[in-house]
Formats: sequence, C-alpha cells, structure tokens
Amino acid sequence: MANITKKVSWSSRADESGAAGEETALLNGSELSRHLAKESQRGKPKEIPHNEKLLSLKYESLDYDNIENQLFLEEERRMSYMSFRCLEISRWVVCGLIGFLTGLIACFIDIVVEELAGIKYQVVKENIDKFTEVGGLSISLILWAVLNSVFVMLGSIIVAFFEPIAAGSGIPQIKCYLNGVKIPRVVRLKTLLVKVCGVICSVVGGLAVGKEGPMIHSGAVVAAGVSQGRSTSLKRDFKMFEYFRRDTEKRDFVSAGAAAGVSAAFGAPVGGVLFSLEEGASFWNQMLTWRIFFASMISTFTLNFFLSIYNNNPGDLSNPGLINFGRFESESVAYNLYEIPLFIAMGAIGGLLGALFNILNYWLTIFRIRYVHRPCLQVMEAMLVAAVTATVSFTMIYFSNDCQPLGSEHSEEYPLQLFCADGEYNSMATAFFNTPERSVRSLFHNQPRTYNPLTLGLFTLTYFFLACWTYGLAVSAGVFIPSLLIGAAWGRLCGILLASITSTGSIWADPGKYALIGAAAQLGGIVRMTLSLTVIMVEATGNVTYGLPIMLVLMTAKIVGDYFVEGLYDIHIKLQSVPFLHGEAPGTSHWLTAREVMSSPVTCLNRIEKVGTIVDTLSNTSTNHNGFPVVVQVTGGDEPAKLCGLILRSQLIVLLKHKVFVELARSRLTQRKLQLKDFRDAYPRFPPIQSIHVSQDERECMMDLTEFMNPTPYTVPQETSLPRVFKLFRALGLRHLVVVDDENRVVGLVTRKDLARYHLGKHGLEELQLAQT
Amino acid sequence: MANITKKVSWSSRADESGAAGEETALLNGSELSRHLAKESQRGKPKEIPHNEKLLSLKYESLDYDNIENQLFLEEERRMSYMSFRCLEISRWVVCGLIGFLTGLIACFIDIVVEELAGIKYQVVKENIDKFTEVGGLSISLILWAVLNSVFVMLGSIIVAFFEPIAAGSGIPQIKCYLNGVKIPRVVRLKTLLVKVCGVICSVVGGLAVGKEGPMIHSGAVVAAGVSQGRSTSLKRDFKMFEYFRRDTEKRDFVSAGAAAGVSAAFGAPVGGVLFSLEEGASFWNQMLTWRIFFASMISTFTLNFFLSIYNNNPGDLSNPGLINFGRFESESVAYNLYEIPLFIAMGAIGGLLGALFNILNYWLTIFRIRYVHRPCLQVMEAMLVAAVTATVSFTMIYFSNDCQPLGSEHSEEYPLQLFCADGEYNSMATAFFNTPERSVRSLFHNQPRTYNPLTLGLFTLTYFFLACWTYGLAVSAGVFIPSLLIGAAWGRLCGILLASITSTGSIWADPGKYALIGAAAQLGGIVRMTLSLTVIMVEATGNVTYGLPIMLVLMTAKIVGDYFVEGLYDIHIKLQSVPFLHGEAPGTSHWLTAREVMSSPVTCLNRIEKVGTIVDTLSNTSTNHNGFPVVVQVTGGDEPAKLCGLILRSQLIVLLKHKVFVELARSRLTQRKLQLKDFRDAYPRFPPIQSIHVSQDERECMMDLTEFMNPTPYTVPQETSLPRVFKLFRALGLRHLVVVDDENRVVGLVTRKDLARYHLGKHGLEELQLAQT
Repeated sequence: MANITKKVSWSSRADESGAAGEETALLNGSELSRHLAKESQRGKPKEIPHNEKLLSLKYESLDYDNIENQLFLEEERRMSYMSFRCLEISRWVVCGLIGFLTGLIACFIDIVVEELAGIKYQVVKENIDKFTEVGGLSISLILWAVLNSVFVMLGSIIVAFFEPIAAGSGIPQIKCYLNGVKIPRVVRLKTLLVKVCGVICSVVGGLAVGKEGPMIHSGAVVAAGVSQGRSTSLKRDFKMFEYFRRDTEKRDFVSAGAAAGVSAAFGAPVGGVLFSLEEGASFWNQMLTWRIFFASMISTFTLNFFLSIYNNNPGDLSNPGLINFGRFESESVAYNLYEIPLFIAMGAIGGLLGALFNILNYWLTIFRIRYVHRPCLQVMEAMLVAAVTATVSFTMIYFSNDCQPLGSEHSEEYPLQLFCADGEYNSMATAFFNTPERSVRSLFHNQPRTYNPLTLGLFTLTYFFLACWTYGLAVSAGVFIPSLLIGAAWGRLCGILLASITSTGSIWADPGKYALIGAAAQLGGIVRMTLSLTVIMVEATGNVTYGLPIMLVLMTAKIVGDYFVEGLYDIHIKLQSVPFLHGEAPGTSHWLTAREVMSSPVTCLNRIEKVGTIVDTLSNTSTNHNGFPVVVQVTGGDEPAKLCGLILRSQLIVLLKHKVFVELARSRLTQRKLQLKDFRDAYPRFPPIQSIHVSQDERECMMDLTEFMNPTPYTVPQETSLPRVFKLFRALGLRHLVVVDDENRVVGLVTRKDLARYHLGKHGLEELQLAQT
Repeated sequence: MANITKKVSWSSRADESGAAGEETALLNGSELSRHLAKESQRGKPKEIPHNEKLLSLKYESLDYDNIENQLFLEEERRMSYMSFRCLEISRWVVCGLIGFLTGLIACFIDIVVEELAGIKYQVVKENIDKFTEVGGLSISLILWAVLNSVFVMLGSIIVAFFEPIAAGSGIPQIKCYLNGVKIPRVVRLKTLLVKVCGVICSVVGGLAVGKEGPMIHSGAVVAAGVSQGRSTSLKRDFKMFEYFRRDTEKRDFVSAGAAAGVSAAFGAPVGGVLFSLEEGASFWNQMLTWRIFFASMISTFTLNFFLSIYNNNPGDLSNPGLINFGRFESESVAYNLYEIPLFIAMGAIGGLLGALFNILNYWLTIFRIRYVHRPCLQVMEAMLVAAVTATVSFTMIYFSNDCQPLGSEHSEEYPLQLFCADGEYNSMATAFFNTPERSVRSLFHNQPRTYNPLTLGLFTLTYFFLACWTYGLAVSAGVFIPSLLIGAAWGRLCGILLASITSTGSIWADPGKYALIGAAAQLGGIVRMTLSLTVIMVEATGNVTYGLPIMLVLMTAKIVGDYFVEGLYDIHIKLQSVPFLHGEAPGTSHWLTAREVMSSPVTCLNRIEKVGTIVDTLSNTSTNHNGFPVVVQVTGGDEPAKLCGLILRSQLIVLLKHKVFVELARSRLTQRKLQLKDFRDAYPRFPPIQSIHVSQDERECMMDLTEFMNPTPYTVPQETSLPRVFKLFRALGLRHLVVVDDENRVVGLVTRKDLARYHLGKHGLEELQLAQT
C-alpha cells in the first residue's frame, strides 16, 4: 500500500487554482481566511510536511452518476419491460458467479496453505526429531528460518516487482474504490493472481499475517472482472454484460464482490453485506443489497461445500469461512450483567493497544516511504522479517517450559514435543507453529489450564511487535487474524488472572470468553470498524448472545483509540493522500458555502465547439480537468454563458478518436453517428489525449456535443452551505457538481477534492493542501 | 388499518390541477396521452373503482430535507465543536432510552399475556375436568368462547372507538412513516397505550394473531416520544432534546425505534437494523445505522434481562425475543445439497399459499371498507371471530383422536387430556390451546412422531382461514406468528410425508427442519420481505447454516407470490391510497421528464409579500399546497420571476401566529425577531390557518420571508428524466423539488404525489389518479 506514493511533494492550494484562492479570501473575508492565517502563523515551518496533510490530484473519481445523455436515454427508451427484466436477471446471475468464484478462490487458498503448511511442519518436525538428540537444534532453526524466508521471498518478489498494489490486505484500496476513487490497477486480473499467490506464500512463510483481508480484495477483483464480460488483460471480449460497462454498475458489483470476500473469509454473509454498505454505500438500494446478500451467501456456501469435500465430509456444512471461531455454546460461556464493566475495560485496553499498534505502524510506514521504496529493498525487508519471526519464535519456544499433556479433547493437530516429557507437548511451540487461525481457535476453546499466564504474556508481547512490523511489508497479507490472535492472547490472560482472583468454578472460570472479548477489543482498536465488525464477530462465533458485549467492546475500543490516532486503514489511506469522502461534512462547516469551496474559474466548452479548442483544453497538463460544463452563449458578450450540460474528458476522447466532427468546410453537416457501444468498448481504459492524432484541418472542424453531454447536470446556487453540497454530492455519488448563479451561469465546479479538503482536526476545521504527487 | 379510509371517493387528476393536465397532454403529445386514452377506452366503466387505483391527497409528506434558512445556519454557526459532540452524545442517550423502553414494553406485554393466559387455561381446565364426567362439554365450550370474546371485545372497543390507527400490526403505517408520509396520529402516546392493551387482549382472547408485529409500531411510538423530550398529549415539556424537534431527526429516531421493536420481538438486533434500512433508509448514514444497532441491542438485552428475572433465572440470557424458535443444532438438522430443490419447491408452495391469503384478505378488506366501517360493527365482527375461533378449535379437538403420551422430553406446558386415555394428552388441543409462539416452537422441535399428518393438515386448513379472517379486524395484532404457524404446520406435514416415502433414520427423518422451511416460505409468501426477514429468521433460529436455504425459500416465495398479487402490507398501503415511493423509478419511465411529471402552475410568493396574499393563499382549500417557491421579480413584467427560495406552510403559519409583519403604515421596518425555538415549539402540530386571526389592518402589512425561507432549494431543469428526478427526490428525502427553466424561473413543482403516481402495472407504466379522499 505504502509503495504507491513514493515521492513526498506538494504544492499550495493557491498555486494550484490561482485566482480562485484570492477570490475566496475576498468574498469570504471572514473566519476562513483568519483561520487559515492563524494556522500558517502557528505552523511549524521547519517540519517536513508528511503527505497525509496533502490531497493528491493524481487520483480520479469514478462516475457513479449516470450520464443521462441523449444516447443513453434513447437506448433506455427503446428497451421494453422484458429487457429490463432480463437485465435484472443477468445482474443476479453475475452476483451468483461472483459469489461462486470468490468462494472457490477462498477454498483454493485454504487448501494450498493447509497442504504447504503440512509439508513444512513434516520437514521441520522430522528434522527436529533427528537432530534434537544429537544436540543440533540450531540446524532445525536455520532450516525453519530458511524455509520461511524462501516462501516469503517468493511472495514478496511477485508483489514488489510485478504488482505493488497487491501488497497488504487491499482493504484500504477497496474502501477507496467503493468511496468513489479510482485507484489505478486495483481491480485487474494480474492483481488478483499476485494477491492469491502472495497471500499463500506469506501465510506459509510463517509471517504474523492472515489470509482473510486479501479475500475482500480478491472478491472485488473477481466482481469487476466477471461483471464486464471481458478481460482487457487477456484481450478477450465475451460480448456479454455490455450494459454493465460503466462505473455505476461496476461499483455495485464490486460491492457484491467485497461482501462475498468477507463472507468467505469469516463465514459471515450478513457481516459482508454490512461491510460493503458501511464502506461503500451512499444511496441505499434494496434490490442491490439483496443481490449483495445473495453473492455473500453463495460465496460462503461454495467454500463450505468444497471444504467439506476436501475434509472427506461432504454435506457437512460446518466450515462457513476461512476462519472459524468454533462454536460458543451459550451454557458454557454465559456472561452476567456485572461482567459488562469488565468487558468495557477490556475494550479500553484494546483501544489503547490498538492506538499504539497504529502509531508504531504509522512511523514505520513513514520510514518505509522515505527509505525502503526500491523493490529489492522491500524484498529484503520481507525476508528479514520472516527470518526474525522464525528466530524469535524459536527463542521463545526454547526458553519456555510450558508443557501440556497430549491428547486432551481439543487436541492440537500439530503438537511439538521439543523439550517436554513424553506424552506432553510444548504449548508455546503450538501457539507459534500453528496457523494463526488455529491458534485463535485454541485460545478461545481450550480447557482452562491449557496455557500458563507467562506463555500468554510473552506471546502477546512478541506477536504484537511482529504483527506491527509485518503490516505494510511488500507482501499480500491481512491484519485481521494477527489482531485477533494478539487480543485473544491477552484476553485469555485477563481471564486467567480474573479466575485466580475469584474462587474457581464460578462463571469467571472460563478464560475462552475473555479471549473472545480481548480479540474483539484488539481488532476494534486497530481497524475501528463498528457495525460490520460486530456482525462479523457474532456470525463467526455463531452465538447471538454475545452481540451486546462485543458491540460495547468495539465501541469502547473505537472511542478510546480515536482519541489518539485514526484506524489503521484510514492512516494508510491518508498516507496515500487519497481524497476520501466521509459520510458527512465536518460538523462545524456550516459557515462555508459553495462559493468558498468550489474551484473557479471553470473551463467551459460551447455546445458546438471547435475541435482545436477541445484538443488544447484536454492537452493542458496544468489543469487536467475531467469534466467540463457545456454552455450556450446567449448574446456574444463577455458575460459567462448559460449552463446547458456537462461532458466528461473520457467522452471527448472517444469523440475525438472516432472523429465525430462537423466539417464546415465541405458543408457536410452530418456527424458520424456514434453508439453507446463505442463508449462502452473504450471503457474503462480510455486512451490519453496524446495518443490521438488530430490533423491541422480537423482542428478547424466543429464538434456538436449536444447528443453526448449530460443535459441535466446537478447544480447548486453559490450560497448553498457546505453540508448541503456535501450531502447532495455524497448521496448521489457525484463527480462534478456545477455551481451556478441565479441566472444559471456557471461560476464554479465542486469536485471530490474540493470537499475532501475540509476535515475536522484537533483544532477544529482544517484544510488540506492539494498536491500534484 | 382499513378503518382510516372509510369513504371511497375520488376526483380526476384534471380537476385537481386544472391547466396542468391539459398542458401535459399538449406538451407531451406522445406515448403517455395515447397510453392513457387507450387505458380509459379499455377500462370497465361499470366497475366501481377501488381506491388502490387512487392516490389520496390528504396525506402530507415529512420534511426530511433540512430547512437551511438563515435562522438555522446562524444557530449551526454559533455551535462549537463541543456542542456537536454533546448533540451526538444525546443522540446515543436517546437511542439507549428507546431501546430500554421498547424492551420494557415487550417484557410487559409478554408477562401480562403469560399470566392472563395461565389464568384462562386454569379456569377452562377446571371447568373441563368438572363437567367432562357429567357429559356437559358444551358448557366448557361456551365458557371458553365467552371468555375469549370478552377479551377480544375489550381489545376491539378501545381500538375501534378510541384509536382506530392502532388496529392491525402497525407495520404498514410505520413503513409509510419511514417512507416519508405523515400518517395522522400514528406516533402518539394514546396510540401506544391502545396498541399495548389491544394486543394483550387479542392474544389472550385466543385470536389467530401474534404480539410481534405491534412491537415494531410500539417501538416507533416510543422513539417519537422520547426523542422530542416532551409529550403533547400530556402537555409536559421537559425542555430537553429541543434540537431534535424536526422531521429529519425524528425520522432517524423512529427508525431506531422500529428496529428496537423488531429486535425485541424476534431477538434479532441485526434483523431489526436491516428492517429499518429496508423500509426507511434512502441515504445510508453510518453513525445513524450504528445508533440504530445500539438501540436494537439494548432492546433485546433489556427484554432478555427482565424475562430472566421473571423466569427466576436471573442472568440466563436465553430469551432474546418475544418469540424464540428454540435452538437448532447443526448436527441434528443438517441439510444436504440435494434437499435444496425441495426447499425451493416449498418456497413456491409458500408463495402460492401466501398469494391466496393476500387475495382473500384483500377481498375481505374491500368488503370491510364498504360495509363494516362503523365502530360497533367492527367490535361485533371481532367478537364473532373470537367466538368462531373458539368453536372451530373445539370442534377440531372434538373430532380429533390424536393422543400423545404425556411426559416426553419436550413436554407441553398446557397439556389437555380431554378425550384421551390417562397419561396422554390431545395434540390437537395443544396446538390450539397453546399460545401460537409455543405451538411454532413445538412444531419446530418436537420429536418426529409427536403430530400425526391428519392433525397437521386440518390444523393448517382451519388456521389459514382463521388467520386470514382475523387480519384487518379492529384489533391490535400481528400476522407474523400466524403465518409462521401455518407454514410450520404444512412444512412439518411435508417433512413427515418425505420421511414416510424414504427410509427412516436418514437425513430426511427430522420434520422440524421442514417445519422451519415451511414457516419461512409461508411468511415470505405473505409479507414478501426479503433481506431483513432472512436475517430475522436466521437470528431467531440461532443457526447461520440455515441462511442459504432460508434465503432461497424467501426469494422463491417472493417471486411466485409477486406473480399473483403484492405483499399483504403493500396491499393495505395501496388500499389506503398512500403516496408511497418505492426505491427506484419504474424501469420503463425514461421517456418521462420533469416537464410532464411536475405540477404546474405553481403558487409562488414574493420575497416581501403582502400578509393578505399569504393568508389567502394558505386558506385556499382547493389547492392546499404545503410548500411555496419564493421569487424575486427582476423587472415588473409578466414573465415568471426568478427563484430565490422555498418556504413551507408550517413556517408561514408560525410567522403569521407571531405577527412577524413589517408595518409599512407606521414606517417601522423592524420585524419581530423570531427564534428557531418558536418553530420548534410549534412542531409538529402546527395550527390550521383558520385558527389564526389576521385583522384587516394586518392584511395590508408586508412580510419579509428572507430570513425564514430555504434560500437554496434543490432544483432540476425541465428536461430531467423521471428516474433522475426520482433518484434525487428519494436519495435526499425531499418534499418539494422545484423545476426551473434555463433562466432559473419557476415552471413547476414536483412533490411526492407527482412521483408516486407512476407505477409499473401489468400492462406497463400506469398512472394513478389523485383524489381528495
């Protein structure tokens, strides 16, 4: 994730949009300018500004608003009721496919990881058995470390050299995509391939990572691919689903894909739907939500079904997700009213530890952005982490003497005897050797005396720092499972301590319950998700009774954590300077109006415009606008003309490419007829303007935009308050909002960056700078 | 529900908005008019038009769009960051209170019903024991029927005479409220009281009803009351939460209340949230959803906690809802892939039976609207139903010989021996005598051989018709539980038949599983809810594994049912002619534009307007508009003036009441300063214009609307397509949308009724008539 923004550069807002900046100061003459002046006096000019204080201009927005131009309306009007039904059915089919493929991918990852981990365990165990007797344990250590490093190296090489966007969990990128920001290459087939291989390598390489986060990204890529009915990477067009080749439809499917990913990862179909809604939805659409739910259901069912076959238990649908918390029976782990304050306290601890995790990771990421940005360095760092992880584990195991009898009812699959007596196994070794998923489950469910407190304490400490170091490496990996594992470890520790204070045999006695609460607290403290995480946790535990405690814990963790620092994903989004729009405008922004917020002056085009002017406008690299209001000049005066439409750069590019010119010279006034199909074929990789050759003769031609522009763009008057502008913009998923005066003349344009600039900081409303990074 | 619209009267659209109708025909000159002409030729003029073909003009809309006038903006700008934080905290407090009170009410209903039902059972059982030996079973029957009728009479009297809006489940009304329609008296304290008492009476009276649906209405009323910090009915103002006294905030709390109601009824907090979102949300707001979830959680927790005390089991939180499906263990009721087609077939049966139920109930409701509209008739009908229910049950019991041994593991709480041998009980009697909740549970969980097929078949048949007759009576009662019961009965029957076909001991052997599927199918076939119902069912069964089958079943039931008739709630909403807006514009409506849809001409007010004109405009009963565009005349010509704002009837009323006049005669140009508080105090029961006295002198004064009007109303150009208008209207929860020409002059106004008129019928797009009913 951190690999994208490698250079820290910025420019001031005033440089960027010249006159507008001054105009703002003049027109407003009030709090804003004074506020900004104060800010700049107070600012520490010596400090190098981190790029989270900037908004990058390199990110484009997605067009969630339908471009209702004449072509589109004509097509829609031609369509019968039956065609709409067919479309609806094909949406369902696509969602079913998305769910099925996502489930298959999850299944594939799971099986490959299981098999490879089994082989690794066998090799290391045989080695240990062979050499422990001759005292050469260090050989086993080296073998282990080398094996891990090789896996991690493979995973890291493909990520760092072939597809850096596949690094990390991909959740921040999907959040941005669903928010409406076009992150380059995020939903390509290549990204998916690298992601899947990468996550297998990093999990088998024994890093402190999970394979759940990447599933969300994988689901999203699957969705973006399937729904388009073609692959640009493979250069295959199946001539299907052509109607879905626009941002609005694609976004809907990507939501479904992300939900299917969550669903496959955690066996939580409802949690998946809520995740997609929490991150992506602005406008609630009942049919869409229902389809998303369908994709999620199919996804968890597919995974469940194929895993049941893999486990030689066909038909036993008890593996709904990659991670399975095991069944919490109400009787054994009931809670009481007076335990709720304890849970809340644990939530606060989770918030604190989460904030610490995030701050450490933030510093690390800054360091990485500055110094570790060459791919080979990144690969080396990843290998270093793998080796250190192996060494630390081995050291911990070496110095631990927590031996547990073998063969209890919840027996471990990979017990290691090591320095224990026969018939016993080393519980620290188990915690480190197991896949993290298994460790979480054993922390939740093992008998009260399975782990001793010292083991848990040391494990928490080391795993915390390892996980923190690992997140942000150039490998594909998630942070969900490590967080759960850290939390489960200290949660279980809390449980054991509480049980030792009070009498045994009481309701306090089961540390598994506290492990669950600790896991929720830690995860909540790191990622700060709320509603969806509660539902995911509840679904993963399969016990509704735990809803309230988990919710309270997550709320506490979020409140405590937010006091110090933002959530991990938000930190990484900010470090990339993505213009991310939150759900609502900052509370104290009512004194700002569209006049102050908008960019101005605006480059407008005439309804019948000279081709040369259009080419020049598009080629102007200093502005690089993506949307242009179309105007009609009523009288040939100086005054701004009346707004009559809006046209996008991508549309103009297609028009230029197809030479849709009115050749005045030959007095042929017919334009070449373009179809919507031409726009859809070019979607989503529109060529840059530089690749389109326009001859000098053609530059003199005229172009009639009437048919292609959106004739009814949304507009607001200049006096509209920022929250109102924000609401309109967000609710409709707009890309451009035209600001007009009371004569319907264009005075400005509000885009995502203009709104994302304002955010609530420690000292009230802050304004971010825009940068060309 | 049916009691509101008692008279069937209508007027044509052309009468209602004179010139506009003609203009539409002229301007459009296309498919619409031709289509309408065809329709009227084809129409059967002899048939009396049912009022579902009309939209009533008597319903007003709620103002979900903030009125951002100067007063509001000044207040917001004065507020510090801390005040916003405090507001946010008080929102959470209110949601917590809503959840707590809703949970308490659910608990109260449950306990009172249990106690009264226990007493009734004792009385009847003693009587039976006493008289069976002397052969006078008819005395017991009469006693039973009388007892039931008395309870139902009480319940019916309070509903029919005191608060007719409290009849039925209240779900259609809450759907309408959340959709943005102001249903009179729906969220008043009196309604709540009548609802609670009414539901107790009807459940204890042995009607085929449930107490779950009414909880949703109760929760909504609680929310509307608590959030306002005062009670208009009790004339108490606690001077709290004054900020929340507007439709936007109130709606948010009502969503939370409805969710809390669902949560308490079914122990389904997530289902509650999704219900609220499915029915109410247009704009997804993360914090709001989170608060709704909080209210739901608190509600189920409160219910659980107090019921555990009532059951002498404090701390055992195993009663999350009023209805508890019991625990479905994965092992005992696992399903296999090849059972899925069976489930889908059962879904289709559920859809068919649901459609039959709805059609019968529709005819019944029409009959009731025409002939049973006097309160005393309604009470008599309710008593008749109660007596018939009792008689039918007794007859069924009398002719049934399904005796089961007493004292199996799932023993019944109220076993009746009747004509069985000692040590046995009559299973038909159990099915009828139990509360429906208990019967559902025993159908789900009892041992395979507990019910014989004939009992189930007869029970299904009678209960189907009884439930159908009961819904729509003037009693407070829900249709959820009867539907579940019918479905569970025929589902179990299917299970038994399947088991008898195949070998015993196989996976088919457990009929409880099929009872669950049948219950879902039947409920889905009747109410046609999708996402929320799936989640409610999954949460109530406590088993995520059943998610996919339940979802498939509900989908099938909806598809099959929708082929014949709409869902029960939608039928009742239509019969009330409520202008209900669905999520999206009809698919084939792209050829309609704002020009055709809007009402015109529009009554506009000048920014500085004569008081007399305002009073006359407001008093004009023939138009009865609620929102007026405010314009400024640029030059004193005939041309329409430029739009500069929008003002509501309610605001004008407050202004008139406080005599905010500029008295030109005395050349005092200061208006009395009004505060937002004055508007909030008058909310929500603004006085009618008739009650405000304006003297002849005052009529000559002027009124300056600048400060009070919303200066930035949303506008669209005339060419905007209907789906685009619809999307804007729905996403922002608008009440008025001004249509302007390209000079920013008002040409029309789009309101809810203008959009709700268009709907997709069997023959494509249909247009409903507007009526003054």
